[in-house]
Amino acid sequence: MISPQVVNSRVRHRGAMANGFASISNGVPDEESITAPFLRLRRSTSNTTSQIAIVGSNPCPVESLDYEIMENDVFKQDWRSRSKIQIFQYTSLKWTLCFLIGIVVSLIGFFNNLAIENIAGVKFVVTSNMMLANKYLAAFLIFAAANLGLTLFACLITTLIAPETAGSGIPEVKAYLNGVDAPAIFSFRTLVIKIVGSIAAVSSSLNVGKAGPMVHTGACIAALTCQGGSEKYGLTWRWFRFFNNDRDRRDLVTCGSAAGIAAAFRAPVGGVLFALEEMASWWRSALLWRAFFSTAIVAILLRGLTDLCLSGKCGLFGTGGLIMYDVTSVNISYHLKDVPPVLLLGVIGGIAGSVYNFLLGKVLRLYNLINEKGTAYKILLACLVSIVTSCLLFGLPWFATCRPCPVDASEPCPTIGRSGNYKKFQCSPDHYNELASLFFNTNDDAIKNLFSKGTDTEFHPTSVLIFFITCFFLSIFSYGIVAPVGLFIPVIVTGASYGRLVGLLIGSSSNLNHGLFAVLGAASLLGGSMRMTVSLCVILLELTNNLLLLPLIMLVLLVSKTVADAFNGNIYDQIMSLKGFPYLETHAEPYMRQLTVSDVVSGPLRIFNGIELVANIVHVLRTTGHNGFPVVDEPPHSEAPILYGLILRSHLITLLKKKAFLLTPTPTGEDAIKHFSANDFAKQGLGTAEKIEDIELTEDEMEMYIDLHHFTNASPYTVVETMSLAKALTLFRGVGLRHLLVVPKTSERLPVVGILTRHDFMPEHILGLHPMLAKSKWKRLRFKFPLWNKIF
Amino acid sequence: MISPQVVNSRVRHRGAMANGFASISNGVPDEESITAPFLRLRRSTSNTTSQIAIVGSNPCPVESLDYEIMENDVFKQDWRSRSKIQIFQYTSLKWTLCFLIGIVVSLIGFFNNLAIENIAGVKFVVTSNMMLANKYLAAFLIFAAANLGLTLFACLITTLIAPETAGSGIPEVKAYLNGVDAPAIFSFRTLVIKIVGSIAAVSSSLNVGKAGPMVHTGACIAALTCQGGSEKYGLTWRWFRFFNNDRDRRDLVTCGSAAGIAAAFRAPVGGVLFALEEMASWWRSALLWRAFFSTAIVAILLRGLTDLCLSGKCGLFGTGGLIMYDVTSVNISYHLKDVPPVLLLGVIGGIAGSVYNFLLGKVLRLYNLINEKGTAYKILLACLVSIVTSCLLFGLPWFATCRPCPVDASEPCPTIGRSGNYKKFQCSPDHYNELASLFFNTNDDAIKNLFSKGTDTEFHPTSVLIFFITCFFLSIFSYGIVAPVGLFIPVIVTGASYGRLVGLLIGSSSNLNHGLFAVLGAASLLGGSMRMTVSLCVILLELTNNLLLLPLIMLVLLVSKTVADAFNGNIYDQIMSLKGFPYLETHAEPYMRQLTVSDVVSGPLRIFNGIELVANIVHVLRTTGHNGFPVVDEPPHSEAPILYGLILRSHLITLLKKKAFLLTPTPTGEDAIKHFSANDFAKQGLGTAEKIEDIELTEDEMEMYIDLHHFTNASPYTVVETMSLAKALTLFRGVGLRHLLVVPKTSERLPVVGILTRHDFMPEHILGLHPMLAKSKWKRLRFKFPLWNKIF
Repeated sequence: MISPQVVNSRVRHRGAMANGFASISNGVPDEESITAPFLRLRRSTSNTTSQIAIVGSNPCPVESLDYEIMENDVFKQDWRSRSKIQIFQYTSLKWTLCFLIGIVVSLIGFFNNLAIENIAGVKFVVTSNMMLANKYLAAFLIFAAANLGLTLFACLITTLIAPETAGSGIPEVKAYLNGVDAPAIFSFRTLVIKIVGSIAAVSSSLNVGKAGPMVHTGACIAALTCQGGSEKYGLTWRWFRFFNNDRDRRDLVTCGSAAGIAAAFRAPVGGVLFALEEMASWWRSALLWRAFFSTAIVAILLRGLTDLCLSGKCGLFGTGGLIMYDVTSVNISYHLKDVPPVLLLGVIGGIAGSVYNFLLGKVLRLYNLINEKGTAYKILLACLVSIVTSCLLFGLPWFATCRPCPVDASEPCPTIGRSGNYKKFQCSPDHYNELASLFFNTNDDAIKNLFSKGTDTEFHPTSVLIFFITCFFLSIFSYGIVAPVGLFIPVIVTGASYGRLVGLLIGSSSNLNHGLFAVLGAASLLGGSMRMTVSLCVILLELTNNLLLLPLIMLVLLVSKTVADAFNGNIYDQIMSLKGFPYLETHAEPYMRQLTVSDVVSGPLRIFNGIELVANIVHVLRTTGHNGFPVVDEPPHSEAPILYGLILRSHLITLLKKKAFLLTPTPTGEDAIKHFSANDFAKQGLGTAEKIEDIELTEDEMEMYIDLHHFTNASPYTVVETMSLAKALTLFRGVGLRHLLVVPKTSERLPVVGILTRHDFMPEHILGLHPMLAKSKWKRLRFKFPLWNKIF
Repeated sequence: MISPQVVNSRVRHRGAMANGFASISNGVPDEESITAPFLRLRRSTSNTTSQIAIVGSNPCPVESLDYEIMENDVFKQDWRSRSKIQIFQYTSLKWTLCFLIGIVVSLIGFFNNLAIENIAGVKFVVTSNMMLANKYLAAFLIFAAANLGLTLFACLITTLIAPETAGSGIPEVKAYLNGVDAPAIFSFRTLVIKIVGSIAAVSSSLNVGKAGPMVHTGACIAALTCQGGSEKYGLTWRWFRFFNNDRDRRDLVTCGSAAGIAAAFRAPVGGVLFALEEMASWWRSALLWRAFFSTAIVAILLRGLTDLCLSGKCGLFGTGGLIMYDVTSVNISYHLKDVPPVLLLGVIGGIAGSVYNFLLGKVLRLYNLINEKGTAYKILLACLVSIVTSCLLFGLPWFATCRPCPVDASEPCPTIGRSGNYKKFQCSPDHYNELASLFFNTNDDAIKNLFSKGTDTEFHPTSVLIFFITCFFLSIFSYGIVAPVGLFIPVIVTGASYGRLVGLLIGSSSNLNHGLFAVLGAASLLGGSMRMTVSLCVILLELTNNLLLLPLIMLVLLVSKTVADAFNGNIYDQIMSLKGFPYLETHAEPYMRQLTVSDVVSGPLRIFNGIELVANIVHVLRTTGHNGFPVVDEPPHSEAPILYGLILRSHLITLLKKKAFLLTPTPTGEDAIKHFSANDFAKQGLGTAEKIEDIELTEDEMEMYIDLHHFTNASPYTVVETMSLAKALTLFRGVGLRHLLVVPKTSERLPVVGILTRHDFMPEHILGLHPMLAKSKWKRLRFKFPLWNKIF
């Protein structure tokens, strides 16, 4: 299909060009690669720009996003220059979408909790009833079988239908907001599996959370609503055309992730701060305002829905679920002498958090190796985790001695059935099993018990220690299974038990009650593992509903984050790097100041002429994976070669599909764009991007021309080849680019010498090209344990 | 002093250059200005880049800041590539500074409150005592005289010592964080006058606030501490050299302003969010973390200090002051039927807020005209406002009828002396004057009374209406006086009275108590005037210490901001534009997409050669006000003219001062930089920048040369002249630049054709050059009232 001329032009050098149209040329001339020592090195390591730097043990093919406003003749104006009616449509639709996101996320959040509480509740009620009838073995078998079935279900649907839903989804959403589009993370299928899988996994008593999946769900809903429903089912609406771009979608996904946290913890302000602190890479003031609107809707609606359930219409939901540990009524007073134990709590929490991250990273690497072996291995692993969990949850309480119910207990003791502080388990009447109160419960209820006040005598230190150790390791070994599971709740429950333990050990030398210690312990482990500050602080405040705790929580978070940062990094960043996402950091590494952009830019560069032969375009699109191509005007259309702009692969495909071809290479007038609407060039719906292979062209059409000028972004950002890489990164990251053109310093050569993409800024790529620079990496003030890394 | 050659070279055209060193040339060749229609226009309107676009009725000379990292040979490496010890120094010092800022700000905040409560308290006690003795006239005279004296003192020290401290200071700090450095806003003198003046002004019973001045104070402390103390008094320390740049100073000023709000409202999270939402133009995750640390310190220390005062050691402080309206104990329950009144409250609050902003803008313009006439007018205006205020505060309560004390009052009734709900004023025993409870009190106490629960029957609607109207207009007419006064507290007190009024009018049809209505009213007016959302919400929550209020406050803020945004803009933005600060918006106006950078860039451009004659440099520095100059290598040092980089005026002055001159124009080696340390080129301390006029050079020295290469930023950001202005703005704003070089599209001309600075992006400047574009301004969906603007 490709004409000989085209194939020929691929290898022809610039200097030999005669007709001015054979423009598929190598942007890095040969003489250049002789003088610059780095260029040869570069050539040998990488061939095309878009295939580099996907690292980690589990690489996944990702696409970059364009957060910059396109500026070609078709898109010349952004929405602000539109008519008042269009602006009204745009603005009102954006607010409506935020409103819808809030509504849908809160409904799903409520439904999730309802489902989990009822499924897990029925399981616990049935098991408890059998235990009351002394059928302990049968109780265990039913308990374990129910857990295994639920885990198996979650793992099966994840593995077979939507493998991209495995894990919490927070790293994927974070990467998306940074400009990395992992495949299918925002499809309708992903949404459904995420919700159903998360319900099954959490109900199966695994030590996993529902907050992370809720964030992903929120982001997914945002991405889907901003598409205007599913294109497949013809549900799109004209107004939604405004949102067919990466910028608006990014904004709404940010709102969606804020709404997700708000729904998970009923923490509206915390949700906004979480999105700001942990998720978003670009933030605007207007976004704060919209995210806040979404989370406000979530908070109000969730409150209403939970109130509805108070009258007992929601089955077993209403007494537990939707964690909200109301400790308002505790009159907290603390003095200077309470500060040292709190500081100690923070320090140990920070160390525990960093150990947690370290071990989780190692386990995830191990699990990746197992999971890569095939579906059967994935399912086996999940089943193994489920069985071990069931054994521990059912078995460990037997080691606790039964204790008599306290006389002044504020709740019925022993509790029989689902939730409650004093579980009977195997004990005789009027006795309770303290370990069962923690183990034989949903995580939400365990947290509630640990946070509760006036229960300082309920638990024995040994029991809490056993619970802490079990939770710590169970949560590490549970996260890696192939199911939609989160990390937040396991870390909170582990941290709360640790805090309670510290409270018990310190005893009466502090006048803080043990529930408060549990809250602070949760804060310290969260801070040590997730490394957020303000957002965690506000989430915990909203959870516990007591602002007087603020200074203490702040102190613990600051200490634990500082301590943990001295050892390793944020858990989500670790997972992102394991997944191989090319996440673009804000700061430039020091060695980037010693390199110029020409030291990392990789060839060969494909250039199009302003008026280009169809066959050339088709050939280049078929043979490369590049997503952007420089357009250069050359003689006879200009006196000297001049860089005209940058054209995107997707726009070229649209042009080829519309077949707006010219018989001769003559420039077209302004009316050429009349055949196109801005919508033709808009970002396609999720997963519906067209491929060059789908376009069929005749031999005659191949010999025709396209005038690319009107469809080219005529204002691409450029850097001079001698610009330091650090400054290029600042530009790339600051503006949110996908392509950055490199222009030559002197004018004798081609007007463009390369294109920088996200991958060219990845430390792995740069250090691969220039290994001698590894020494001048950013020196964090961090303790190193080479021995540890050897052992594990 | 200037050699004839130099003077000559000023007028010589580029083409006539022979020796290649007479480089003071006009960057826009004449032929260019004939072909491009805009260039002539531009020439006639403006001469130099740095003198344009200072608009508004009260222009003030400002300097732009450079938030980008300098990259010349001396500064090649940023701190991350330094040795571990240096990194440790840098990091620990940065945290220490945040800690210090927190400590100092909380101490000052505490001291402020202590002073205000004691000064105002003594005044009220003396007056009350005289009234008890029935000496009403004398009481009034003492009251009025005390107020007048305090106002006069505040106005005098402001006018005579530090005029830049007038107003709240929030607009100045906000502009600084955007990159606009108004003169002397962060000097030690400013700090002292701000503190003392604010204490005097607030104590004088003017309806003004202390929160705004507290923000400025916090920012000032941050700027001063990061300078490492005062250079004047030799208190600098070597470690502080790391902070001699605009970026680090900006970060610390952001932390300082967060600490300021935290100290004013004892709202640590609210302070961070305020800095994020309202103040900062650039935000990094690390900043959140540092600002949070500062505000945590403030919160903890303030709590400790206030606790100390509970035992009565702080004079009259301890019972009032440091507003913290503890409404925790109110059991709030609200239902769906409470939503409509709350919505109504929000709508009216939004309208009232926008009217407030509108009137305040008009009054400020009027006051500016009066204040410009001279010091006497400023003082007279302040005295007039003080006398009117005293008359209203003392006079209006006489219109209220005395009411018998309620039998079940939780406080002593009537209160005699300073603070309390039931003021006796002129009433007979066992009666109280409801208006005096509001008027004859500090603002803090008035707010506390309005927010208080269980006082639904205390006030009559007419009294609250009188109070609302008086506060509304008093606060508008008080802000413009030349003294350090803020807006937050007046808006809160006005809003609280409005909310209380709505509560009284709605009466029993809502089961929210009136104190709650007052809180919501304050939220609605704050939202309508300041247009913040999340930060105001959190500040109010921290003030009232009741998280259950969250959904209602959110709702009110969202509604009132939305309504108010339909009429006009944020109050601080209005004040900034009145002050003529060239504030750089994040969004590009639509007409910027229709312009290229060459349409706005203004000449003449001054260019230096890589090796330049000293006389030329001196001449250019003396005759222009430019702060950055392109450096171009020309034959014989290069084959063709090549853009080498950008050099700053301050660095040129350093070079001239050090006299590192060459006898012949030969390039120097790397060792040339050994005579300089990075510190020589660091940002000078506040107000200590050296001037070219201070440097004396001999005739011989004038004929020598300087090799500029090692001191030039060799990686300046560049845009092609055909780049759309909107995209150039995105780059300029995104990276935080001060200068942006414009390079030509084709290579026949000079390698640089212009420099873009902040002023070139100001809408006033652009629309001045291209008035026909005014039509395509950003169309806000906003109601217009041309009639109103005519009347006022």
